[in-house]
Amino acid sequence: MTDQHSYKLSHRHLIGLEEYSRRDISLILETAASFKEVINRPIRKVPALRGKNISNMFFESSTRTRLSFELAAKQLSADILNFGSSGSSVSKGESLSDTVRNIEAMQVDCVIVRHSSAGVPNFLSQCLTSAVVINAGDGAHEHPTQGLLDMLTIRDAFGTLDGLKVVLIGDITHSRVARSNIWGLRKMGAHVVVCGPPSLIPKEIDKFGVEVCYRVEEALSEADVIYTLRIQHERQGEIFFPSLREYATLFGIDEDRLNLAKPGAIIMHPGPINRGVELDSRVINNGRSVILDQVTNGIAVRMAVLYLLNGGGEHDAE
Amino acid sequence: MTDQHSYKLSHRHLIGLEEYSRRDISLILETAASFKEVINRPIRKVPALRGKNISNMFFESSTRTRLSFELAAKQLSADILNFGSSGSSVSKGESLSDTVRNIEAMQVDCVIVRHSSAGVPNFLSQCLTSAVVINAGDGAHEHPTQGLLDMLTIRDAFGTLDGLKVVLIGDITHSRVARSNIWGLRKMGAHVVVCGPPSLIPKEIDKFGVEVCYRVEEALSEADVIYTLRIQHERQGEIFFPSLREYATLFGIDEDRLNLAKPGAIIMHPGPINRGVELDSRVINNGRSVILDQVTNGIAVRMAVLYLLNGGGEHDAE
Amino acid sequence: MTDQHSYKLSHRHLIGLEEYSRRDISLILETAASFKEVINRPIRKVPALRGKNISNMFFESSTRTRLSFELAAKQLSADILNFGSSGSSVSKGESLSDTVRNIEAMQVDCVIVRHSSAGVPNFLSQCLTSAVVINAGDGAHEHPTQGLLDMLTIRDAFGTLDGLKVVLIGDITHSRVARSNIWGLRKMGAHVVVCGPPSLIPKEIDKFGVEVCYRVEEALSEADVIYTLRIQHERQGEIFFPSLREYATLFGIDEDRLNLAKPGAIIMHPGPINRGVELDSRVINNGRSVILDQVTNGIAVRMAVLYLLNGGGEHDAE
Repeated sequence: MTDQHSYKLSHRHLIGLEEYSRRDISLILETAASFKEVINRPIRKVPALRGKNISNMFFESSTRTRLSFELAAKQLSADILNFGSSGSSVSKGESLSDTVRNIEAMQVDCVIVRHSSAGVPNFLSQCLTSAVVINAGDGAHEHPTQGLLDMLTIRDAFGTLDGLKVVLIGDITHSRVARSNIWGLRKMGAHVVVCGPPSLIPKEIDKFGVEVCYRVEEALSEADVIYTLRIQHERQGEIFFPSLREYATLFGIDEDRLNLAKPGAIIMHPGPINRGVELDSRVINNGRSVILDQVTNGIAVRMAVLYLLNGGGEHDAE
Repeated sequence: MTDQHSYKLSHRHLIGLEEYSRRDISLILETAASFKEVINRPIRKVPALRGKNISNMFFESSTRTRLSFELAAKQLSADILNFGSSGSSVSKGESLSDTVRNIEAMQVDCVIVRHSSAGVPNFLSQCLTSAVVINAGDGAHEHPTQGLLDMLTIRDAFGTLDGLKVVLIGDITHSRVARSNIWGLRKMGAHVVVCGPPSLIPKEIDKFGVEVCYRVEEALSEADVIYTLRIQHERQGEIFFPSLREYATLFGIDEDRLNLAKPGAIIMHPGPINRGVELDSRVINNGRSVILDQVTNGIAVRMAVLYLLNGGGEHDAE
Repeated sequence: MTDQHSYKLSHRHLIGLEEYSRRDISLILETAASFKEVINRPIRKVPALRGKNISNMFFESSTRTRLSFELAAKQLSADILNFGSSGSSVSKGESLSDTVRNIEAMQVDCVIVRHSSAGVPNFLSQCLTSAVVINAGDGAHEHPTQGLLDMLTIRDAFGTLDGLKVVLIGDITHSRVARSNIWGLRKMGAHVVVCGPPSLIPKEIDKFGVEVCYRVEEALSEADVIYTLRIQHERQGEIFFPSLREYATLFGIDEDRLNLAKPGAIIMHPGPINRGVELDSRVINNGRSVILDQVTNGIAVRMAVLYLLNGGGEHDAE
């Protein structure tokens, strides 16, 4: 599949895009692009990871991401095992490190982890001796495969990421999606603007090389990519803005705001969408929306990550 | 498998037997009959749907039907993904249409839907551009694969459905099983009698070409098939009859009542059975009970439906 | 795989090690040892049970054991279906015997059962006509595959079980793990000592051919194997000892106590561990701990059991 690349990833795990180089990211995106051909064949399976055991360990519920990894693993012919937190040994008081060491002792080759606490995937990667850890989202830290699928989608539209103006709109402070995109997009040469209520934009974020803009109209000017983040209104607790309605009025994207961006600008959202809040329904169904392409690219990117981290290339050489 | 049939189904989805013609139903039953041979081989797998992605979307709990579809899909070598409503994006406020479009964007070829609201499978079929929808039960509307497996079981016993007297006993008003059987059996030429407490038989049901009979003894006379429906006493809410005990006394089938039917009459139930309510234990274990054959036929019928709707035949031609 | 063995298991089901002979147990351990080679190959799959349907029926939650059976089944190329108690037909009032007969009617070849009530697997085995039952733990009765994996682990360390001194420490009364180990180890010629608070050791247990010892220091003298049982403190109800702290003081194994056993003694635990209660953390990470080997051997033993009970050998002969 990728035998033209003599280059391999410089990491054993995928914890975040912060650690990944431009070269690592490019390798994943190119591998994903070649897997997109596989996905579009009538029979989508390749035997690359046959006999490998991959486990989904989702301590935070997520159907979409879990299914996407599950499909990616199955299309590579790996076996995938779902492991939830309820009814598990974790609920019987076992430490997380003992749980994951047990999973590894069952000959699981790769553990895909989602957890509400930032740092859990990194911690687990230090507990394991041979299994690979992939972060499927940890607290407000990172969601690297989301960042990668977003970059693949942008690259599909523009052919490159270099020099594009990408505007991230919404709750930047609590968004692991924003964090992974910022790390990745900056390394790939994009110009990143963050926009949202001042209470939801971290201070000193400009140190990450992004531009801050509190007015959405200003942010959208000359934008190539409008990336709207999900408002996590189902998370109880602190309130950072007065109401969903006010958020929609100030930061929601409708057709008028869309027209402030470049004519060829694309619209993105990591899903699930709150229709009428982050995006007006007409914008979602607009030809410039690539939201469903993001979902499809999620499979290809996760195939690429699973393949590259589980020695898929070495297998082929046998 | 069905290359002798130049005929194909005249529908892209399976929402209900109301829309399916006698010819469609016959094609499914014949295909299912040929899959029964596969099921009885030592190695039950056929590669017909290899590389296809099929998703179970069960918004209402059901182990039996879900397992049956899962087994059918696996025996056709398809990949099957389970998607429940708890912890899913639906519980995060996403619209049902966005959820299903996302599933489709993940390259899922076929969505099997169960939902407590009538009409959901039909609605979803209109949201999708390429994926196939199979109704696994929607509210009190239809449960078409149950109707089909019931017809296959009757055909196995009598060689035909034409001219048989089939008596459906129980809660006709709230039963999607009754509805699918009435549509299917009438099209296949059976004479259908419905029998139950007047409060549980819809007015004007005779317009569907069925005979109504409130006394079970009268209904059973000359019957070929005694089909007992499940009393859904776990559903809270309105009460339509005084007690389970009274229901059993008036409509439960014991050996005495069984003897009112034709000597070769068979006994059916869609399960799970309330022993001692719809059926006396001696009747369940009687040689005339085909209740477990219904379960086995469920796999064959679901294999046939999955195969015919997912282009299995076209694959073979390649 | 085992064509060198003309001998077959003398049972159709695996309910407990009480019924299994020394010869049966040896056959399983030897078959498991040969499967360990399969597990260590780059591609771990063998086609031995291709087309077989195996169902996990876990009425009591357990991630670890369920995953282990699931991996074992997949590595034998069987299809595995997970069936839980919530949302199932059991919660709709169906009898357990009807549920399992339905599962069998779906052409499931083998049912792996865990239940909080002792005797359920045995009862189910009597309801079924062709499917095989494997007990994955029933109440305080038996957990035979745990006993088998423990014996495989001991045999790996010492080459034999004959004549070894094995000390089981903890709650003997409520432990199905202890029970299966006592039956198995005695048949294989080991000397078994049970040790724990008097309230947690059944009276008359010496009739099973085991020695009773209430002081851990005395029990450990000349021990080859120190087997610590899990304190099930999450089970509500009766209290059999004053506190976890007192239990740890009296029966917990730390490095000092470990040194009372033979120099080559190994330490075992069925997991999940309560660190600092049954075992001190330094002991868990000690080179003499084989706790993670137990987990790995669980896969091999379950592959062997699935293979031998599902006619794997006969398949090969075809």
